[in-house]
Amino acid sequence: MSILVVGSVAFDTVTTPFGEGKEVLGGSATHFSVSASFWTKVKLVAVVGDDFTPAHRRPLLEHDVDLGGLVVAPGRTFRWVGKYGYDLNVANTLDTQLGVFAHFSPVVPEPWRETPVVFLANIDPDLQADVLDQVRGPKLVAADTMNYWIDSKPESLKRLLARVDVVLMNDAEVRQLTKEPNLVRAASAIRSWGPSMVVVKRGEHGVLVFAGEGAFALPGFPLEEVLDPTGAGDAFAGGFMGYLARAGAVSSDSMRRAMVYGAAMGSYAVAGFGVRGFEGISHADVTARVREFTDLTHVPAAEPIE
Amino acid sequence: MSILVVGSVAFDTVTTPFGEGKEVLGGSATHFSVSASFWTKVKLVAVVGDDFTPAHRRPLLEHDVDLGGLVVAPGRTFRWVGKYGYDLNVANTLDTQLGVFAHFSPVVPEPWRETPVVFLANIDPDLQADVLDQVRGPKLVAADTMNYWIDSKPESLKRLLARVDVVLMNDAEVRQLTKEPNLVRAASAIRSWGPSMVVVKRGEHGVLVFAGEGAFALPGFPLEEVLDPTGAGDAFAGGFMGYLARAGAVSSDSMRRAMVYGAAMGSYAVAGFGVRGFEGISHADVTARVREFTDLTHVPAAEPIE
Repeated sequence: MSILVVGSVAFDTVTTPFGEGKEVLGGSATHFSVSASFWTKVKLVAVVGDDFTPAHRRPLLEHDVDLGGLVVAPGRTFRWVGKYGYDLNVANTLDTQLGVFAHFSPVVPEPWRETPVVFLANIDPDLQADVLDQVRGPKLVAADTMNYWIDSKPESLKRLLARVDVVLMNDAEVRQLTKEPNLVRAASAIRSWGPSMVVVKRGEHGVLVFAGEGAFALPGFPLEEVLDPTGAGDAFAGGFMGYLARAGAVSSDSMRRAMVYGAAMGSYAVAGFGVRGFEGISHADVTARVREFTDLTHVPAAEPIE
Repeated sequence: MSILVVGSVAFDTVTTPFGEGKEVLGGSATHFSVSASFWTKVKLVAVVGDDFTPAHRRPLLEHDVDLGGLVVAPGRTFRWVGKYGYDLNVANTLDTQLGVFAHFSPVVPEPWRETPVVFLANIDPDLQADVLDQVRGPKLVAADTMNYWIDSKPESLKRLLARVDVVLMNDAEVRQLTKEPNLVRAASAIRSWGPSMVVVKRGEHGVLVFAGEGAFALPGFPLEEVLDPTGAGDAFAGGFMGYLARAGAVSSDSMRRAMVYGAAMGSYAVAGFGVRGFEGISHADVTARVREFTDLTHVPAAEPIE
């Protein structure tokens, strides 16, 4: 099944203790698209300014992302400037210039309105809802969000959540939205508002999923080289949703495997600024990393000690 | 194989957002002993004051911990007063009264000197080394430590590490000791000083082990009720070392299973103040929780997507 993604395409300037990326291609929809493109056809709806050159399109086109919904508007592309310290889970925003993104009103091209899987990357929840108004009978809808929208538009966000199957948030956001420090109870609260699956992203500490009757946890992949965590969550989402779209069905088994694929994609994302961590990565590389990851977390069966 | 443990036995007064425990039985050796006692015979070397009553001994005796090395000295038992906020990974020490612990010089009773497994719970690294001088030909030696000793006795600690097989530390301590933010590289540095296995405890985020050629990661168990994280790391160590002692050999498989048993024991420790989380817990309960935990992290095999 193909995936429709709506979100931001941006130029990011990022400083980490390990280097700097200047005006590199970023944005939630970019990271998601490149990652998901490893598994299925991705159709991107976003806006960029007239400073967005063919060179900026190249990484997306090389991953066969369909840019038929990428609108070029007069003005500047969205820019984000951020900095990380040694705690790579905390991004400090130094500057945000919305540019053409300030007036973004996503339009899903008519031929894309029956795309079976929809990913609403982190943008204004009212815009996310607009996109849902345009699509017809999607099989699986997932949404990401961030602390900014939880603060400024909590009611819009809750209305949106009632319409999605899967929500992805980090642990601080889950606590912030529900005002409940305990993640098990916080996830239950969110599920009572609509989503059947809550994916709690924990940065370098992995991911926790609440779905069906149970929970599933995956630790972070211990990496020797981490350059830039920006986009890791969107790359995770791309691997996760891309795998589910390819598998064609959501079951406990496919969901668990999708998490490992998501984690593997996240591990590439952090290895370079922008989407450079994915440069030269093949399916065989990902398959090998998925195997490494599965081995990392494998517990051999044993006779219980009585 | 039985286990010899040397460490602290204390009275803890702990405040968390979820309640308070006043002068409850605590200390690194206490938490370790109760936890390890589920799997093997535990022999405890520690010191308490003359305020340590038969009622204080009861939880240890109920778990069949051998108190033949528990010295009663004139004076007061070690007391710790601490407080946790919503970030349960961070303990704030409000008061420490060493009492009889100030002059503790551990003596291993002669019949215990050939105990095959030795656990050096968190105390002064010079005292930990004294214990190693007294034992003969142990098969497996593990040590815990804390930021206080890394700050005040780094050279003693490094000398000790050269003599142990397994070291358990939390992630901040691993980074502090090695001055290396990346855990993979930090663990390599520590292993180059002696221990063949480095166990990185990450609180609610689980645990990471570096041993042999590889790494193994386990996420935290998502718990609905957490009352008091004090002793969770020692309870983890008790389950981990207890399982290895019972298994009789350290292999990649037994180490992986030991981690799950450790994590299960840690999950009981946090459910009550002091060692109350273990009250009424049977082997069958632990076996059921180990199964839950294994299910939580299980990734079903799949045909790789090419």
